[in-house]
Amino acid sequence: MTALKNDRFLRALLKQPVDVTPVWMMRQAGRYLPEYRASRARAGGFMDLCMNAEIACEVTLQPLDRYPLDAAILFSDILTIPDAMGLGLYFETGEGPRFRKVVDTAEAIEALPIPDPEKDLGYVMNAVRTIRKELNGRVPLIGFAGSPWTLATYMVEGGSSKDFRKSKALLYDDPKAMHMLLDKLAQSVTSYLNAQILAGAQAVQIFDSWGGSLSSAAYQEFSLAYMQKIVNGLIREHEGRRVPVILFTKGGGLWLESMAATGVEALGLDWTCDLGVARQRVGDKVALQGNMDPTVLYANPAAIEKEVGRILESYGNGPGHIFNLGHGITPEVKPENAGAFINAVHDLSAKYHQD
Amino acid sequence: MTALKNDRFLRALLKQPVDVTPVWMMRQAGRYLPEYRASRARAGGFMDLCMNAEIACEVTLQPLDRYPLDAAILFSDILTIPDAMGLGLYFETGEGPRFRKVVDTAEAIEALPIPDPEKDLGYVMNAVRTIRKELNGRVPLIGFAGSPWTLATYMVEGGSSKDFRKSKALLYDDPKAMHMLLDKLAQSVTSYLNAQILAGAQAVQIFDSWGGSLSSAAYQEFSLAYMQKIVNGLIREHEGRRVPVILFTKGGGLWLESMAATGVEALGLDWTCDLGVARQRVGDKVALQGNMDPTVLYANPAAIEKEVGRILESYGNGPGHIFNLGHGITPEVKPENAGAFINAVHDLSAKYHQD
Repeated sequence: MTALKNDRFLRALLKQPVDVTPVWMMRQAGRYLPEYRASRARAGGFMDLCMNAEIACEVTLQPLDRYPLDAAILFSDILTIPDAMGLGLYFETGEGPRFRKVVDTAEAIEALPIPDPEKDLGYVMNAVRTIRKELNGRVPLIGFAGSPWTLATYMVEGGSSKDFRKSKALLYDDPKAMHMLLDKLAQSVTSYLNAQILAGAQAVQIFDSWGGSLSSAAYQEFSLAYMQKIVNGLIREHEGRRVPVILFTKGGGLWLESMAATGVEALGLDWTCDLGVARQRVGDKVALQGNMDPTVLYANPAAIEKEVGRILESYGNGPGHIFNLGHGITPEVKPENAGAFINAVHDLSAKYHQD
Repeated sequence: MTALKNDRFLRALLKQPVDVTPVWMMRQAGRYLPEYRASRARAGGFMDLCMNAEIACEVTLQPLDRYPLDAAILFSDILTIPDAMGLGLYFETGEGPRFRKVVDTAEAIEALPIPDPEKDLGYVMNAVRTIRKELNGRVPLIGFAGSPWTLATYMVEGGSSKDFRKSKALLYDDPKAMHMLLDKLAQSVTSYLNAQILAGAQAVQIFDSWGGSLSSAAYQEFSLAYMQKIVNGLIREHEGRRVPVILFTKGGGLWLESMAATGVEALGLDWTCDLGVARQRVGDKVALQGNMDPTVLYANPAAIEKEVGRILESYGNGPGHIFNLGHGITPEVKPENAGAFINAVHDLSAKYHQD
């Protein structure tokens, strides 16, 4: 294996000293980049892009060619697992993801298979191997999966939802069935992430996009408990290195203490949480990733730099911070604004890493 | 003025002893009730309903005739103020509210008038007076307004928004212009709520529906600071009684301490915040209103009762809790499930009020 030329991201996840604060952006390979739109048009649909290891690799590397990012993230989708369970994922133009089959009864849940990652999701592992090889040690590669609760919402609703009424009705009406579904998903995500690690992912992130839609009690029981199962089952050392795990519950700012207690290396934060307050709350337990409001990228570069400076200041001195947006970058952002953001992180953070 | 026959709601807001926990529902006069849909059809459009004091009064009282609710809330809309500022509010079927005029430049903001509540929003005050008279002391009447930040988002976006990109871009690009807009809105809301109090509202709630979309720093500067201005300017005693103020920032669970420090009597909580933890955090400063996830009403009555019991238990003994949903009741809820919810609150809460 090639040695890493830039390991800032992995060092910061382990709270080791760095020269400047590392930065990457959720959805950094995405529609705001014209080169991404061209690759996607060439691939066909969104899933064709995910399933073609060469083009998935190409779009993964595009933002790295434009900006001095400190990590690459596998180009894929969180819904590959339900698709491999037989739900038939598809995307309609202008709409969110949809499933041909909906899973909303105990019987349907019972019948769900647990996918074998190399057999049923081999295209993802091929993409990981291809990207890792092409990266050639430039920066670390992040693998990822959706959280069980987040995946369950799409499977029960049949797609995106505003208020998760079907999934929450199932949770409250038939908690046993919901637990069965979440347990199957936790098993599936664990082996899926482990396969990504064996294929070359050097850190993994669990995206709990919809955990923040739950009550505090339901979050603990139906989302965090299953992420804990995953964390317990993950390969934590590979290629002679720690494989850090990042847990990101969007809207989870109230629950940072219990998220940190799962034993992950880092928590992802959205922008509602003050980074300095979050650091005090979790102490030395975990590193923190975040937390700029992605809509700041609609403002002018001077305003973007000001906000980057404010966030760096709120974290303060020392390692353990990975700069990121609090959610994915949106298609309408100007590429030059993303560049201003990334440069500002490196330029303004050196003074916080002088010892 | 007629004496109040049921003052549980006002007593709980002041942390005074009650026999059972009072309960009302945000949007309790709404589309889930067939009698509401009939009244609305008779009125014409949604704004025709708001502007017709007799029908507004009729729909305000409908849920009280069905359920033993402990408060009535004025039937109106938070966007009456921008409408009175000349923006031309309208509703398209199946879409959210829209404005004919968008306010997104310093010039447009400068030109905005501050409405005179009795002159420009007389229809709201007529509705308050009519409802108060018809209530005849049955339960207290709640008046309300949107928070300056929440109103500003609609005015800058021209309607609803998923990510508030235009309003946030203005906030970061030209904070001075945003402050001017928020200051005008704070002045307008203050005199609007005071006029409602003089017309008969016995408590008022400030709906900060979109404060939770902001970063912690931006929330303090662009939302909470202007709600503080309003609170400072409100009539706090009327008809020989305290007029309690309820501050509700949806998604504001991280900021309860600073919300409580504004000097309001109560905070509204969405469902992400554990009620017992919230009570510890705010101490004796304020009463707490909330906090059941409204989607629980899609579950069966037994599940609804279980969740009501869990929330009552998390608050524990003593006064200072007003039961409510963490957000408005949705049109698809079965009226009998709302009834099961309200009865459960009264039936299960007596044991927490025995001293």
